[in-house]
Amino acid sequence: MNQKLGRASIKPEYPVYILNSASIVGTKEGQGPMGLLFDKIGNDDMFGGKTWEEAESTLQKEAVGLALQKADLRPEEISYIFAGDLLGQSMASSFGVSSYKMPMFGVYGACSTCGETLTLGTMSIAGGFAEKCVCVTSSHFASAEKEFRFPLEYGNQRPLSATWTVTGSGAFVLGAYSGSGVQKARARITGMTVGKIVDYGLKDSMNMGACMAPAAADTLEQHFADFSSRPEEYDKIITGDLGKVGQRVLTDLLCDRGYDISDRHMDCGLEIFDAQSQDTHAGGSGCGCSAVTLSAYILKQLQEKNWKKVLFMPTGALLSKTSFNEGMSVPGIAHALVIESLE
Amino acid sequence: MNQKLGRASIKPEYPVYILNSASIVGTKEGQGPMGLLFDKIGNDDMFGGKTWEEAESTLQKEAVGLALQKADLRPEEISYIFAGDLLGQSMASSFGVSSYKMPMFGVYGACSTCGETLTLGTMSIAGGFAEKCVCVTSSHFASAEKEFRFPLEYGNQRPLSATWTVTGSGAFVLGAYSGSGVQKARARITGMTVGKIVDYGLKDSMNMGACMAPAAADTLEQHFADFSSRPEEYDKIITGDLGKVGQRVLTDLLCDRGYDISDRHMDCGLEIFDAQSQDTHAGGSGCGCSAVTLSAYILKQLQEKNWKKVLFMPTGALLSKTSFNEGMSVPGIAHALVIESLE
Repeated sequence: MNQKLGRASIKPEYPVYILNSASIVGTKEGQGPMGLLFDKIGNDDMFGGKTWEEAESTLQKEAVGLALQKADLRPEEISYIFAGDLLGQSMASSFGVSSYKMPMFGVYGACSTCGETLTLGTMSIAGGFAEKCVCVTSSHFASAEKEFRFPLEYGNQRPLSATWTVTGSGAFVLGAYSGSGVQKARARITGMTVGKIVDYGLKDSMNMGACMAPAAADTLEQHFADFSSRPEEYDKIITGDLGKVGQRVLTDLLCDRGYDISDRHMDCGLEIFDAQSQDTHAGGSGCGCSAVTLSAYILKQLQEKNWKKVLFMPTGALLSKTSFNEGMSVPGIAHALVIESLE
Repeated sequence: MNQKLGRASIKPEYPVYILNSASIVGTKEGQGPMGLLFDKIGNDDMFGGKTWEEAESTLQKEAVGLALQKADLRPEEISYIFAGDLLGQSMASSFGVSSYKMPMFGVYGACSTCGETLTLGTMSIAGGFAEKCVCVTSSHFASAEKEFRFPLEYGNQRPLSATWTVTGSGAFVLGAYSGSGVQKARARITGMTVGKIVDYGLKDSMNMGACMAPAAADTLEQHFADFSSRPEEYDKIITGDLGKVGQRVLTDLLCDRGYDISDRHMDCGLEIFDAQSQDTHAGGSGCGCSAVTLSAYILKQLQEKNWKKVLFMPTGALLSKTSFNEGMSVPGIAHALVIESLE
């Protein structure tokens, strides 16, 4: 039986398998520390599109295509696609995945969307509603700057607390434990904790790490309570894009609540760029950041059994240019998944 | 056992119950043909907020509060909330539902979002991951005009094919067949068909009915195939907000495919306003349109056994102001739910 655990967590009766995955990134990400691990790096950041938005749609389309190819599956074999991005009305997804003609669930959780799609995909399979699903998210530096901040041509200066939106898309093919392809799967999802919106009233969209850290702390604390687990059970506790500032806030908040994660915390935003030489300030961010890091790096570590069990928790900052201009705060949300290597 | 049916459909082993629901609307909707049926009508369309966006958040907050109150439940008894709206980055939901501190899934499917939240909520309960869920969506005429079209102050003229975004929010409390409150439930959900994105290349954001009708036809045809059913099985086949133009396109498209739904088709957008006297042109639209009509009118008919079984299918037009300004088409998507009266 699938189990609801505590306030916000789920333990599926059988694990759901990440059958395969793909990552595609822009040039700057390709030059970063994980450059050699990505499946594909664009020659330029337009990816053959005429607009930044079209470029981002192409990222999703290619990531999904490549993930299907690696899993040796056709689009018709996929029950549903769960897709999301950061743009207004999730347009990168709508134009990115429509050609596959899969029944689709559009999802929005800001930069936590990768965790949300994987959670819903896992539920749909573990619940017996689907055999195989695809989960995909993307972000693009230029489309995100246009959507949330300033025109690129303006050449604005960025404070050191600001993060750099990752240009990239990660796609994941999930499958049921009883289905085909499980023996060659990359990893398995064995538990989930669904995040709440947490609002500490911070309003600085150039310091999203601090805005999201309280939500990350809340989901982690809830996870430990619901699963009666401790940080030591995980080889790594991985957040999406807290960056340098948010990481500090998160470890401090959790310390106050009796959990020390400092020796095993990793943040995708801190891994994807070399902040010093690549001038990315507090780190990478965006829906694509955690997705490409999961596909290229985290799943590789699990597959090679360097890690056995990790907690993967993308973090999202809930703002729009309208909410920001109207002086609203920037609440956060974070969804956590327990991902384990194959037995 | 929960069953996946055909390409895109789901038949849960046990029905999921709509334990209760609430609708709250603006003044214009209150003056319409369904005015007497809504739970609450605002004194003005600001609902105590300082901005249109805040007004829309208040709609969601009040609809959820009222639905919980009618179901005699506290927020802590709700496993998850599935929420969405039309604004960029779904901001009406983020600021609308955060105070309830429920684990949250943000969802985006344009005006089909009500169907998407109900589908995911039903899956989460039927899959054994949740006992009770809340599903909520909203739209607001003024925040939608600002988001997608022109400033209200500009006083633009609208073509007759344009629809009028409904100011309103509908919230639904779903529960498992084995849980409490089932005897007094309003109706039950017994099947679902998940929509694909369908793009006929139309680009007219002032004729969204025509943009969405092909998606509605696609989901309906898929539904009849997956469930081996015929239109005659349903007392009503209900679309979200196709309006006058879209309704015509839908019935024509389905006629070509061998299904005559003209004697039982109903469109929420055509019911909510008196187009003639209220000057709403092709009809009502928006995430709130199908949600408040379901809560106030459709569930009432099912509860009074005037109807026994309906197919409820909110329809969405996938566009943003950026995609529109960049000359992209307006694809559609539609999700269908089989809703039946209690036995």
